[in-house]
Amino acid sequence: MGKCSSPSIRRRIGAWLLPGCGCRFTVWAPARNAVRLRLVDSGRSVDMRKDEHGYFTAEIADLAPGALYLYDLGEDGLRPDPASRFQPEGVHGPSMVVSSAYDWDCNTWQTPPLSRWIIYELHVGAFTPEGTFDAAIKRLDHIAELGATCVEIMPVAAFSGCRNWGYDGVYPFAVQACYGGPDGLKRLVDACHARGMATVLDVVYNHLGPEGNYLSLFGPYFTDKYHTPWGLAVNFDGPWSDGVREYFFENARQWFEEFRFDGLRLDACHAIFDQSAVPFLQELAERTANLADELGRPCVLIAESDQNKTRTILPVAEGGLGLQAQWADDFHHALHTLLTGEREGYYEDFGQISQLATAYEQPFVYSRTYSAFRQRTHGSSAAGLPGERFVVCAQNHDQVGNRMLGERLSTLISFEACKLAAAALLLSPFVPLLFMGEEFLETNPFLYFVNHEDQALNTAVCEGRRKEFESFHWQGEPPDPVAAATFERSRLDWAKIEGDYNRHTAMLAFYRRLTALRASESPLMRLAPWAVRTLWSEKGRWL
Amino acid sequence: MGKCSSPSIRRRIGAWLLPGCGCRFTVWAPARNAVRLRLVDSGRSVDMRKDEHGYFTAEIADLAPGALYLYDLGEDGLRPDPASRFQPEGVHGPSMVVSSAYDWDCNTWQTPPLSRWIIYELHVGAFTPEGTFDAAIKRLDHIAELGATCVEIMPVAAFSGCRNWGYDGVYPFAVQACYGGPDGLKRLVDACHARGMATVLDVVYNHLGPEGNYLSLFGPYFTDKYHTPWGLAVNFDGPWSDGVREYFFENARQWFEEFRFDGLRLDACHAIFDQSAVPFLQELAERTANLADELGRPCVLIAESDQNKTRTILPVAEGGLGLQAQWADDFHHALHTLLTGEREGYYEDFGQISQLATAYEQPFVYSRTYSAFRQRTHGSSAAGLPGERFVVCAQNHDQVGNRMLGERLSTLISFEACKLAAAALLLSPFVPLLFMGEEFLETNPFLYFVNHEDQALNTAVCEGRRKEFESFHWQGEPPDPVAAATFERSRLDWAKIEGDYNRHTAMLAFYRRLTALRASESPLMRLAPWAVRTLWSEKGRWL
Repeated sequence: MGKCSSPSIRRRIGAWLLPGCGCRFTVWAPARNAVRLRLVDSGRSVDMRKDEHGYFTAEIADLAPGALYLYDLGEDGLRPDPASRFQPEGVHGPSMVVSSAYDWDCNTWQTPPLSRWIIYELHVGAFTPEGTFDAAIKRLDHIAELGATCVEIMPVAAFSGCRNWGYDGVYPFAVQACYGGPDGLKRLVDACHARGMATVLDVVYNHLGPEGNYLSLFGPYFTDKYHTPWGLAVNFDGPWSDGVREYFFENARQWFEEFRFDGLRLDACHAIFDQSAVPFLQELAERTANLADELGRPCVLIAESDQNKTRTILPVAEGGLGLQAQWADDFHHALHTLLTGEREGYYEDFGQISQLATAYEQPFVYSRTYSAFRQRTHGSSAAGLPGERFVVCAQNHDQVGNRMLGERLSTLISFEACKLAAAALLLSPFVPLLFMGEEFLETNPFLYFVNHEDQALNTAVCEGRRKEFESFHWQGEPPDPVAAATFERSRLDWAKIEGDYNRHTAMLAFYRRLTALRASESPLMRLAPWAVRTLWSEKGRWL
Repeated sequence: MGKCSSPSIRRRIGAWLLPGCGCRFTVWAPARNAVRLRLVDSGRSVDMRKDEHGYFTAEIADLAPGALYLYDLGEDGLRPDPASRFQPEGVHGPSMVVSSAYDWDCNTWQTPPLSRWIIYELHVGAFTPEGTFDAAIKRLDHIAELGATCVEIMPVAAFSGCRNWGYDGVYPFAVQACYGGPDGLKRLVDACHARGMATVLDVVYNHLGPEGNYLSLFGPYFTDKYHTPWGLAVNFDGPWSDGVREYFFENARQWFEEFRFDGLRLDACHAIFDQSAVPFLQELAERTANLADELGRPCVLIAESDQNKTRTILPVAEGGLGLQAQWADDFHHALHTLLTGEREGYYEDFGQISQLATAYEQPFVYSRTYSAFRQRTHGSSAAGLPGERFVVCAQNHDQVGNRMLGERLSTLISFEACKLAAAALLLSPFVPLLFMGEEFLETNPFLYFVNHEDQALNTAVCEGRRKEFESFHWQGEPPDPVAAATFERSRLDWAKIEGDYNRHTAMLAFYRRLTALRASESPLMRLAPWAVRTLWSEKGRWL
């Protein structure tokens, strides 16, 4: 009694169909005195009620799925819903009321333990000629036969234009229309489960994209207290941050609950700035654990972080943030530099046999170690932590795509060396991640591509990429990220494995043998890095 | 072998006299290609050698204590040493070579456990009419007889002008000249120990003051990645941050080792921004623990933080930063609002009896609780943690001095209510802190005062203060922080207790009885907040 207790401000933000035929609209807009709901088809405008936490609501009695709407912000224009669940006409157009109902085919799915995951990362647009969820479904048998047990989908939140890696998404709840929208994504998840594969969605909670981002008109979603490399930092610890956190908590809940994802890959957690006593990531982990209990199935959170910080994955009771796993890029760098001999950019910190040996024993090579590239001491020690807490790779979208020419290992090193990379990865005591195409020695690059509607922005992106490549001292001009051809060149070429025996089908067979070996050999399933004994010689260049 | 290991970059930065009669100069200046040492008296210039970590060194064979020097940065002028140990002519003048030798009187001192500390916070300038360390020594018997067991000294690092709270210091290693310089401070510490009192120094590691701050000319001491309310944030996690950390590690070492302080109070830890895997504060705690082992005596770190974040004081093994104690201002706010009825500014979050009851059981009233003032959920729970991990007060320099008129409780509430405040504090299960003068019902205000040499800066400070008071809706004009009279009005008036019995001497006697009670009653020594049982009624307004 009398104690100031935290008000529960959980809201189903967005447009939610009510039992019967009505629809309830809720938008968090504490910066506004008034918000009116505009129904596009009828041209009708409806005043919304504001509560003390800045949530505006309105209910419409007669409204069917498919109705288009916008929020009228007076002088600041008619804007889409920050929690829009579908943007059929792009990031500047109206939001659409969609039904969350879906007739799931696979209702017996059980998520395997993380220690059995072999992740296959794909970009929906470049994975197939059609670039849609439905086209991807047709290739799922290939992934299942490869022996992967989890499909990880690069971000699908609605972005401007039709070609984008996904990290420019501006409607975190809306599934990109040209990929097939929300129902298409559900069909893909369902089809993965039907084939015995878990699903992970890559989500971006550290920033939003530059075009179609109207969130600041609604409320303090962003802060200028911190800087990210990609724009305004999300306000996770300042005034009104409870509402911002709720926005992302609800987002995570949507993917787990409504879309039945098994896991989320949280992009660039090192750019989530948060000084609060209970950081956003910790609270997300706590809520996700509660949700998992509620749903009766695992809900896995995997951080991408370049900080080599064990706090991310330690349990809350041990002072950690409580996430289940995190990416460990040092493993990649140690392997890549030995295979390629490259020493540019951040690879200057790697290149020694001993580092790969370390990476097998605990994946953070830099653990309170001075990094010449970072010009500071870096990382904490992950020694003794279970292998399933770390996702490692020999290639991924960043390591390939952030090269000026987007070269895969297949064009940098020999066939035999690629086999070595595959074995090094798939026999490691961590959770391996494959990047689409590496299993069949795809030689097409994976380039950086965008096509914003805003041409000035496209120009700025090109300039920014050029600058990024300076530290690598790469010669020549980077391919134009905006050109359609750059995107087309980045697609997988499935014809490579449709013919008779060739080096592509041979590599695929090798990958299949490795995944089968991993699944059948019990020591490989234990993921106990501390039990790894490495023998190596720097002079002899062997491990 | 072959492993990239962190190079030890520990340096004795500053000017250090060598055995014999030479002197070694070391300055961390990675931003410079060349630095020349200028000896002021002889006009001689000496080239310095730079190492790979950005340290420049030079040795001079014949140099006695008292020699003045500057660093020649070419176009960027002749500048004082960032690690200057004395600035006899102010923040823009030359640095002085000083001897660290000191003939300590008290060599048998043993630091009492934190659970027995009663801290007495004083500002050297305003504590006595003379405003010096030596004058303060003459009043130490008063503090000892009061029953305080620890003297905490507001920051003494060299600042511009001669009147300053201390948070504008720009030479963290140099003791302000007008207070009596380094030897004066040592005499004060020695005299405290001789009277059985520990010593704590308030140090500012989150920012440096605005005038005389030439550090950016030497290297990346600061970063624009984060913002503090007081200027550039210190670079604790970016490129070259190892050198910045060393600078502050060496600073802490100086106070513990050379000046024999028992503890450091780390100002505004919430403004120390640091995303790294091993945060600066954790590394400081680890190094300080090692130093304590080396010195064979406790070296206590106490954080000021407004985050209600238990991570600050949890052991490293439990995922904490490993500091010994932290300030818990919620205790003050709960007590202050009940006593005064004030509800302005951050006091809007307080005012309920139940909150003071909570504060006795665990000092963070806000522990995952929604704060109307902060407009967000705030804090984590400190339930179950030992009382000696929290420093609480009924008044301190901030709570008094950040009021527009700098009023102490003595002028806001009745004599009897002041006694209640004293008892509430001194019988609490936490480490109590008294603010100089409260023990004898000083009625002089403690106002904010500065006198920078830069008049434009003084004007900006006045304007900034005025704005700060807006959220408190205080009427009228704040006293001019720059006026000498503002400082003079803030001095303690010792005449109040030099006469016969009066309300001042009566209050002093009451404080003495309370400290004696605290020292003699064993339940009060246990500092077990979880054993506190509070009975209270919101309606009846009693506790």
